Amino acid sequence: MTLFDRLKADAAPQWADYTRHSFVEQLGAGTLPLACFKHYLVQDYLFLIQFARAYALGVYKSHSVADMRQSLEGVKAILDVELDLHLELCGSWGMDRTAIENAPEDTPTMAYTRFVLDAGMAGDLLDLQAALAPCVIGYAEIGARLAAEDCDDDANPYQRWIREYAGETYQDLAGSFTEWLNGTAEQVMTEQRYPRVLSLFEKACRLESDFWQMGLNVKD
Amino acid sequence: MTLFDRLKADAAPQWADYTRHSFVEQLGAGTLPLACFKHYLVQDYLFLIQFARAYALGVYKSHSVADMRQSLEGVKAILDVELDLHLELCGSWGMDRTAIENAPEDTPTMAYTRFVLDAGMAGDLLDLQAALAPCVIGYAEIGARLAAEDCDDDANPYQRWIREYAGETYQDLAGSFTEWLNGTAEQVMTEQRYPRVLSLFEKACRLESDFWQMGLNVKD
Amino acid sequence: MTLFDRLKADAAPQWADYTRHSFVEQLGAGTLPLACFKHYLVQDYLFLIQFARAYALGVYKSHSVADMRQSLEGVKAILDVELDLHLELCGSWGMDRTAIENAPEDTPTMAYTRFVLDAGMAGDLLDLQAALAPCVIGYAEIGARLAAEDCDDDANPYQRWIREYAGETYQDLAGSFTEWLNGTAEQVMTEQRYPRVLSLFEKACRLESDFWQMGLNVKD
Amino acid sequence: MTLFDRLKADAAPQWADYTRHSFVEQLGAGTLPLACFKHYLVQDYLFLIQFARAYALGVYKSHSVADMRQSLEGVKAILDVELDLHLELCGSWGMDRTAIENAPEDTPTMAYTRFVLDAGMAGDLLDLQAALAPCVIGYAEIGARLAAEDCDDDANPYQRWIREYAGETYQDLAGSFTEWLNGTAEQVMTEQRYPRVLSLFEKACRLESDFWQMGLNVKD
Repeated sequence: MTLFDRLKADAAPQWADYTRHSFVEQLGAGTLPLACFKHYLVQDYLFLIQFARAYALGVYKSHSVADMRQSLEGVKAILDVELDLHLELCGSWGMDRTAIENAPEDTPTMAYTRFVLDAGMAGDLLDLQAALAPCVIGYAEIGARLAAEDCDDDANPYQRWIREYAGETYQDLAGSFTEWLNGTAEQVMTEQRYPRVLSLFEKACRLESDFWQMGLNVKD
Repeated sequence: MTLFDRLKADAAPQWADYTRHSFVEQLGAGTLPLACFKHYLVQDYLFLIQFARAYALGVYKSHSVADMRQSLEGVKAILDVELDLHLELCGSWGMDRTAIENAPEDTPTMAYTRFVLDAGMAGDLLDLQAALAPCVIGYAEIGARLAAEDCDDDANPYQRWIREYAGETYQDLAGSFTEWLNGTAEQVMTEQRYPRVLSLFEKACRLESDFWQMGLNVKD
Repeated sequence: MTLFDRLKADAAPQWADYTRHSFVEQLGAGTLPLACFKHYLVQDYLFLIQFARAYALGVYKSHSVADMRQSLEGVKAILDVELDLHLELCGSWGMDRTAIENAPEDTPTMAYTRFVLDAGMAGDLLDLQAALAPCVIGYAEIGARLAAEDCDDDANPYQRWIREYAGETYQDLAGSFTEWLNGTAEQVMTEQRYPRVLSLFEKACRLESDFWQMGLNVKD
Repeated sequence: MTLFDRLKADAAPQWADYTRHSFVEQLGAGTLPLACFKHYLVQDYLFLIQFARAYALGVYKSHSVADMRQSLEGVKAILDVELDLHLELCGSWGMDRTAIENAPEDTPTMAYTRFVLDAGMAGDLLDLQAALAPCVIGYAEIGARLAAEDCDDDANPYQRWIREYAGETYQDLAGSFTEWLNGTAEQVMTEQRYPRVLSLFEKACRLESDFWQMGLNVKD
């Protein structure tokens, strides 16, 4: 059993709360209030900036050039591609670039991102990967499921978001990340250490749920 | 004008929200539901552990032996004294030591502590101090004010908490921290940098308010 | 006066020792023993790996997306281009790839690289830049000077090395780094802080000289 | 077999080079030139400051309050006791306090200390401990051996140094550190990881030898 499969099984309730959160279900059904989605999108932009820092930390923490290059892919994906895609998506909803860049970070945004950064800095590469995993892999699972459930519904205003995470580029990135995590675990995981890694994973799932809830809490 | 006075003036709304939060006012009046206080106390224990890590980071980040020793005082205060005082205080409310040590961290606890740790790691000593300041100095102000308002009310079940932070030991620690922060600012502060330091301070005040609110949200 | 010009002027003896080190002069004259150059080249490969970590640390330490992207260029330059160029150059001297990748780090290699990494982690972005500057900018100055002195000497066995650092790509990278350093200084430099930044710069120059000397010390 | 015993066995040549370095043997015989010893002593003072930072990093990196307290003992030992003892010892040789505090760090001092700090920051607590171990445990072994070989020789001008490290206080500290290292290894060591930990240990031994050699290289 790979580490990821084991973590997902042992944190099944937290994983389900996160990946089947009401925000996600409403997004898939196209019934999510636009104000909720917009708030989420702005915070997700700020979130990605911190995640680029976390991947950069992965480069710093790597013990091999191969690991450095794997981590670098994450930094590039965000700084060279995703941030601009986000601004473009925001623009298509009439949201202003400067407003997005200057929006204050909400508490759930700070909570999740700083948790990941600290887990990674205090621990080793595996700790960093375990804290990143719910986001990186969870979005791929959510995207694929929503796309499968709702594959032709062009009426869904969130279709583009769904297709981005269901698309081959993101699915490959998440698949590659999963292999990387499992490969690191084969090197450094011990049974005594497992409960601590599981705890990082569970906390990260919970902080992801809080992040969705932050979106839902927005009133029009 | 010292840096701390300037920060407090420029972040006056956030400072007031935090230091005069309803949790604080109810604690001073002795009307705070015990369940709220107990939840706070447990989370504050977990919070202190992370703050000891933040002070240790201060030792690591120091450029002089004097700064290292100043930071070390913060680590010692927590690891050698405050954690045990907390457990003792918890014990006086019938709370079990093991339960406290194994309690899960709430989101606001993670949000504030990891924010401080990341601000300090990513920046320099001044960034770390600015993120720590609302907690260290704010508790001294709250303790002193509540003690002055309510100095002889032994009926207040939270009298011991108030006296701890109003007491000379804690007031001296906070005063010494304030001087340290201001002294660092005299070395490295610039006008161009000030908005970023202010932002750290404001966020930390906001995260402290969220921490009180977490206590208030507890239902009996 | 920009920060870099000031640092170079105030650390003039260390800068001269480094940029006009006997290793450099012999390299420019084509008289450097090949064994010395080969040893340098292998250690420089190991050095670059650590410098990629240092640039990644720069991404982590950045307070703006613009700074993150500037730092990312440094990581990419090494991991996507320079390491392979190095291996190719080594190959042209008959040096085996695996031998290079598994060579032990010499003390001067560890001294300089870990000094930069620690200076950057303990301080802020400016501290990191000041510790990186002698390498990044010094190599551009050395390359340009040697190319100007010796522009058509195809008999020089080290011509390719000289042309790489004298070339437009590297000169642009170094020029962009210099502007970045000076721009950061405009934000966060104070007179009280200057001696410490100068000390980082001087130490880095000295550690670069030790790095050249390590090459010279090799006996055929 | 404990991790430390295994490391010492597998790095036997590096351990012997370090613990039986000519500097050590001359110190034990009382024949070490005073200029060599004085240079060592000044650099060791600067070394200790960085080691206090490394122990503070251990507090930051700890996952339990017990580990935090163990690391804190190392910080306290240096900042509260050893630095002053060093200055006093230096004073007894007529060396001036200010001169010591302002002495420039030699390359071997920077190499070893920054290596430890970076190993610890990039890795986890075990990586930090493995990099610290040669210094902490090696000095205890050296002190005990020299004291046993030369127990009554009051003519040895370095008797006080020997007695400090042979003494119960230091021996206990080193013993406690050894148990701590071995205990961490029981939690997180894997066979796949062992070569990397061994490499940290070997490098640290080598950097210690370089540190002794730096002393020997001093000419009167």
